[in-house]
Amino acid sequence: METNFPFALDITVRFAETDQMGVVHHASYIVWFEAGRVAWMGAAGLPYAQISNAGYNFAVVDVQCRYRAAIRFGDPVQVITRLVSLRSRQVEFAYEVVNSETGLLCAAGSTSHICVDNSGAMTRIPEWVAEGLTGNVKREA
Amino acid sequence: METNFPFALDITVRFAETDQMGVVHHASYIVWFEAGRVAWMGAAGLPYAQISNAGYNFAVVDVQCRYRAAIRFGDPVQVITRLVSLRSRQVEFAYEVVNSETGLLCAAGSTSHICVDNSGAMTRIPEWVAEGLTGNVKREA
Amino acid sequence: METNFPFALDITVRFAETDQMGVVHHASYIVWFEAGRVAWMGAAGLPYAQISNAGYNFAVVDVQCRYRAAIRFGDPVQVITRLVSLRSRQVEFAYEVVNSETGLLCAAGSTSHICVDNSGAMTRIPEWVAEGLTGNVKREA
Amino acid sequence: METNFPFALDITVRFAETDQMGVVHHASYIVWFEAGRVAWMGAAGLPYAQISNAGYNFAVVDVQCRYRAAIRFGDPVQVITRLVSLRSRQVEFAYEVVNSETGLLCAAGSTSHICVDNSGAMTRIPEWVAEGLTGNVKREA
Repeated sequence: METNFPFALDITVRFAETDQMGVVHHASYIVWFEAGRVAWMGAAGLPYAQISNAGYNFAVVDVQCRYRAAIRFGDPVQVITRLVSLRSRQVEFAYEVVNSETGLLCAAGSTSHICVDNSGAMTRIPEWVAEGLTGNVKREA
Repeated sequence: METNFPFALDITVRFAETDQMGVVHHASYIVWFEAGRVAWMGAAGLPYAQISNAGYNFAVVDVQCRYRAAIRFGDPVQVITRLVSLRSRQVEFAYEVVNSETGLLCAAGSTSHICVDNSGAMTRIPEWVAEGLTGNVKREA
Repeated sequence: METNFPFALDITVRFAETDQMGVVHHASYIVWFEAGRVAWMGAAGLPYAQISNAGYNFAVVDVQCRYRAAIRFGDPVQVITRLVSLRSRQVEFAYEVVNSETGLLCAAGSTSHICVDNSGAMTRIPEWVAEGLTGNVKREA
Repeated sequence: METNFPFALDITVRFAETDQMGVVHHASYIVWFEAGRVAWMGAAGLPYAQISNAGYNFAVVDVQCRYRAAIRFGDPVQVITRLVSLRSRQVEFAYEVVNSETGLLCAAGSTSHICVDNSGAMTRIPEWVAEGLTGNVKREA
């Protein structure tokens, strides 16, 4: 299953996201990953709010990020998100954070998620969610 | 060189750190890692503010975190930080986030850093900084 | 009713809370207010987690903050919180953010809250909560 | 001087901005105000990065926000920013946070700023900055 359709989300760096080193703080990238992932799902036709409102969430079980070049306030940024793998109970996304003017790769990372219900218990990804997540790829292929 | 002296920092979960899943948001752990690292340096007798004020910073080049159990508002939390490795230009820390009442391991992760000067350029870790970082271990051993 | 018993919470500035001006970002103070308020309740013998777990929350309806002096990473900070007023459905707190070494007043502000139930609807503050909030004052007076 | 030209910035609520009450945390609005203000300046032809890179910043001296209706993840949000007053050393903005679908006013607030130089000292707003800030209004009037 080819599931690595990329979606590019434009990010406007917030002043609050900088730190006293004069660059974007490293924890902000993790929040950007999330924004990229949510935007990816929206582009796939399956808004995360819809999943969440139905009582399911993709709890994060693993985060990795490798930082390659600092990002400054005013830099034009894109988070490019890909669905890397989808199993019955787990889903994984990969991200690239790039300067959208120069194309410079500033950071790359990934997140793994398990599906949990409203009580926080691990559960199978519902059929309609799995279809929504892969539908995007199918439509593009 | 035995450099894995652990330092435990008590964390009081902030309401702002929770999300609508009713648990601490995963990006907050990355900020807690930083707080743990800074506290570790303070315990080693080398406050990070002193390093930073001298014109040096430990820019983060890699972050990893594995989440094992959710943390809720009101839970008593500790971040246990260890210095894992120290080279001429790079330093690595490891972290465990535990429930300090039950001892349950909630998350484990690591960060890698390069030393940069005020212009953001990579530089050698100054002698006094390297000594400060390892002095803690020596005093404890 | 004398309800302005102050509680001082020590804050360790987080590097993530600074911005590229080299000082603590102004939005961080609002989160500190919350931490101060939660600590005040804990000191009053009524942990906010207990209120929240019982299905009640103090939704913020108004925030004000006046910033007087910048705070830097490494500065020793205290948030001093007071309960200013308590009515059947509303509660107001006031805050001072001070440098705990010099005593310098860095910021002062206030928050107003209404009591909401789990559905988000405004409701009367439960008797046991109102008593818990004022009990602190009584014990101190 | 008519300076209240409004600029509307679309905000996509981030999951990280919610809290365990299931709504956007109140401190996030303060960060949105900042994003709205920066976008207003960009629309006025004077990117804040340009001001900041030239060694000037608008330090926040006062923040106020009145919250009227909760915002949930998935809600379409706009921050509408207006320049309220501009004096030799001080500038004030006002904000409305609205649901862009229903038009519902969710919050309203303001921020006051002084101009500071790189050392953090209060200074006059440079001529070119003052002109840039009011130019927008002039072009629209």
